[in-house]
Amino acid sequence: MKSEEKRRREEGRRAGSELARVLEEALSKIKPTDAERRRLEKITAFLVDEVNREAKRRSVPARGILVGSAARDTWLSGQRDVDVFVMLPADFSDDALERAGMELARGVAKRVAERYEERYASHPYVHAWVRYESVFPAEGQWESDVYEVDIVPCFSVSSAAAIRSAVDRTPFHNEYVKRRIKGLEDEVRLLKQFLKGLEIYGAEHKTQGFSGYLCELLIIHYGSFLALLEDAAHWKFRTLIDIEQHGRYEIKGDEPLIVIDPVDPGRNVAAAVSVDSFAKFVDAARSFLENPSLEFFFPSERRELSREEFLEIVKKKGTDVVLVVFDAPDVVDDILFPQLRKALASISKLIERHGFRIFRREAAAVGRKAFFVFEMEVSELPSVRRHFGPPVTAEVHARRFKAKYAGTQMYIENGRYVAEIPRKYVDVVDLLKEELRACALGKHVSEAVARGYEVMRNEEIEFFEGLGKFFSKYFSSSVKG
Amino acid sequence: MKSEEKRRREEGRRAGSELARVLEEALSKIKPTDAERRRLEKITAFLVDEVNREAKRRSVPARGILVGSAARDTWLSGQRDVDVFVMLPADFSDDALERAGMELARGVAKRVAERYEERYASHPYVHAWVRYESVFPAEGQWESDVYEVDIVPCFSVSSAAAIRSAVDRTPFHNEYVKRRIKGLEDEVRLLKQFLKGLEIYGAEHKTQGFSGYLCELLIIHYGSFLALLEDAAHWKFRTLIDIEQHGRYEIKGDEPLIVIDPVDPGRNVAAAVSVDSFAKFVDAARSFLENPSLEFFFPSERRELSREEFLEIVKKKGTDVVLVVFDAPDVVDDILFPQLRKALASISKLIERHGFRIFRREAAAVGRKAFFVFEMEVSELPSVRRHFGPPVTAEVHARRFKAKYAGTQMYIENGRYVAEIPRKYVDVVDLLKEELRACALGKHVSEAVARGYEVMRNEEIEFFEGLGKFFSKYFSSSVKG
Repeated sequence: MKSEEKRRREEGRRAGSELARVLEEALSKIKPTDAERRRLEKITAFLVDEVNREAKRRSVPARGILVGSAARDTWLSGQRDVDVFVMLPADFSDDALERAGMELARGVAKRVAERYEERYASHPYVHAWVRYESVFPAEGQWESDVYEVDIVPCFSVSSAAAIRSAVDRTPFHNEYVKRRIKGLEDEVRLLKQFLKGLEIYGAEHKTQGFSGYLCELLIIHYGSFLALLEDAAHWKFRTLIDIEQHGRYEIKGDEPLIVIDPVDPGRNVAAAVSVDSFAKFVDAARSFLENPSLEFFFPSERRELSREEFLEIVKKKGTDVVLVVFDAPDVVDDILFPQLRKALASISKLIERHGFRIFRREAAAVGRKAFFVFEMEVSELPSVRRHFGPPVTAEVHARRFKAKYAGTQMYIENGRYVAEIPRKYVDVVDLLKEELRACALGKHVSEAVARGYEVMRNEEIEFFEGLGKFFSKYFSSSVKG
Repeated sequence: MKSEEKRRREEGRRAGSELARVLEEALSKIKPTDAERRRLEKITAFLVDEVNREAKRRSVPARGILVGSAARDTWLSGQRDVDVFVMLPADFSDDALERAGMELARGVAKRVAERYEERYASHPYVHAWVRYESVFPAEGQWESDVYEVDIVPCFSVSSAAAIRSAVDRTPFHNEYVKRRIKGLEDEVRLLKQFLKGLEIYGAEHKTQGFSGYLCELLIIHYGSFLALLEDAAHWKFRTLIDIEQHGRYEIKGDEPLIVIDPVDPGRNVAAAVSVDSFAKFVDAARSFLENPSLEFFFPSERRELSREEFLEIVKKKGTDVVLVVFDAPDVVDDILFPQLRKALASISKLIERHGFRIFRREAAAVGRKAFFVFEMEVSELPSVRRHFGPPVTAEVHARRFKAKYAGTQMYIENGRYVAEIPRKYVDVVDLLKEELRACALGKHVSEAVARGYEVMRNEEIEFFEGLGKFFSKYFSSSVKG
């Protein structure tokens, strides 16, 4: 701690005492108390022992290790997440791993957890809720002190190059970070909270932001939160960070940020970071350095927008807000959001193909509802459209065109026939009611929409739980001046 | 005549008796009567003599010749146009030509014309109104039998290659046609009337169509009106016709039809024919051959559209008709129309640059008024627009952009800043009222507009003389099924 405190103070002086004050205050809110930390250390140690005891009991050649932010002391105050990995011999078959590993995990959960469930990522694992006082009854009550524990079986491979599934890599990340993070833990905490404030913390599809491991690597690389921001303020797209100087990563895709995994040079740790998450971070780094404030770490809660306020705003802007709402399919966000984004693009194409003009669009899921917002610049059109035919000199096509559109007003422009024909949809709402389902919506969204959906415009929009909050965010700036 | 009648009958049989009937009937309406022809021959002979007498009187080495359709007997019944050229020695200076030539022309006009005026094309000339019965009082009254006579001084050069001004070429055209047109005069008449029906007869800027000389050459080349139509039905853009096989014309510009001048291989007689005039002719040729009718030659008069009918049509179409009206500048059509077209293009750019969408546009001059019609697909827009800023990574520009648009709603899309800023014009009518004069309108249109103009939409539009007829044409097909 000592050296860290000193460094931050020095930086503080460089960046101005106001900056230092803000960082101190932010940290004071996110740094676990000693009591909090003691309890976490105690329960994590207990859980690892439990895994090992269970292994002995079943005479399975497995050992438990603690990974994740709990293992690196980079967790934020209030967090109660624990990741315990169950390392099994690399020569086990996948089935054997799954059977032995999961039985062991279940065994532990049954004994220590209030309740648990089995989940599946690239591998099956157990997610358990463990109440501190039920494990250590001696100590008094602690409000809502329930830890969420993942017990994850994996192969104990010799090197990260030899992994058999993504989870096998985690222990190597764990080792790498633990060996280097000492003294930088609070810097990681500041970064994580900063990203939370920007809503770009987390690598899942919904967020498309920065993972905890990525945060740790960035701090290891730059040495401090401020040093990172000062550099990020000048980042360009396709910034490449190669901590271990592997220099072997051939850049694929168009990822805006490339942070080569120290334990696996073929992998970009920042692959999940979208262009806009990247841009938000760069923009915020600059703004924060220019005038630092706690707002970045703890943005003030947005109040719900009332239906009346919503209508007032839309009236003032003169746009038309068209909402397509349906019951969110019962799938995890990591499956839902890629489909919502795909659908949004596909529906937008449909709308523009019919001549309407979109001002701004967004896809979202709030509570039990999923929806698309199309803020329209042009949502209604004339009842006719100009259909351009062949050049007059293209004899065969000309004959066909004139026969097909006989009866409509027809004239020649720039040597081609033009026919004024009825427009199929004069109102974007009708278009969406009729043809939404013809779009590429993705499996689950498509099924959900098939079960029924509503298309509403402006005053037709009924406000459901959370929509007011969504709009209050939608209608306010997402970058700080 | 004999042989001609025969040929047309044969063609008639080929093209079906209906076709023959239509051609016969059309011709019967446009072919001058013998009496009509006799009178024209008499007065033209008289006018040429007058020129020669006047020359002798003034002892100017000049001689008069009759040119134009009167000289070739390719004029239409009812026409009273006479072109007499005054040929002066090629060694005269331009001044000498102008002085001697115009004095002579004036002298003739003073003696024989009711009134005359001096006009100027590439050269000065006299335009005179000559009443038949005042020249030949012996013969009785003939209603409104006034001939419009152009008396045009020109250089009598040895060859078309040696001409000093465009008018010097005319006598050579005259010679060329006279030597070949015998027996084809009625074919030329049919073609001229057919083009009149399509409103593409005449090479002036307003019409951008087929000149009389071009009609004669086409008939000479194809041998008959029907043979021309049968070939034109298959014409492609950039059709080249080289009657004298000069083959020396290097194609410049993008003229759709190239007819090499037999007396001047460097010149395209069809240079004035616009793409749309060309296309209208090709389309009409096809339609006429498919079902021939007198309508092509004599389209039924269009009745005025009433203001109520106009509004009904616009309401039904759902477009907005915006009219920009001003007093037509006092210049000839050949100067006015190129400027109107230029202005139309420039104003259209202005409109689209501001986000409005034009459905169809047109420029016209009717009576004392000139105007632009913008039939709008989108004539009103939201009060905000999305202003796209620099990529977040462009640090300097980013700072400037954020400073400039501070206070507006701002967010990041695809890595760039977007600011929602007020739109300068939400209504195209306001835009045109404010900024029309900033467009490139051409000298005279610009001056006329500067004197004042009105911008009206739909029901605001006051119908002035001729507007109803314009709209009845505007809202009906200009190609036959």
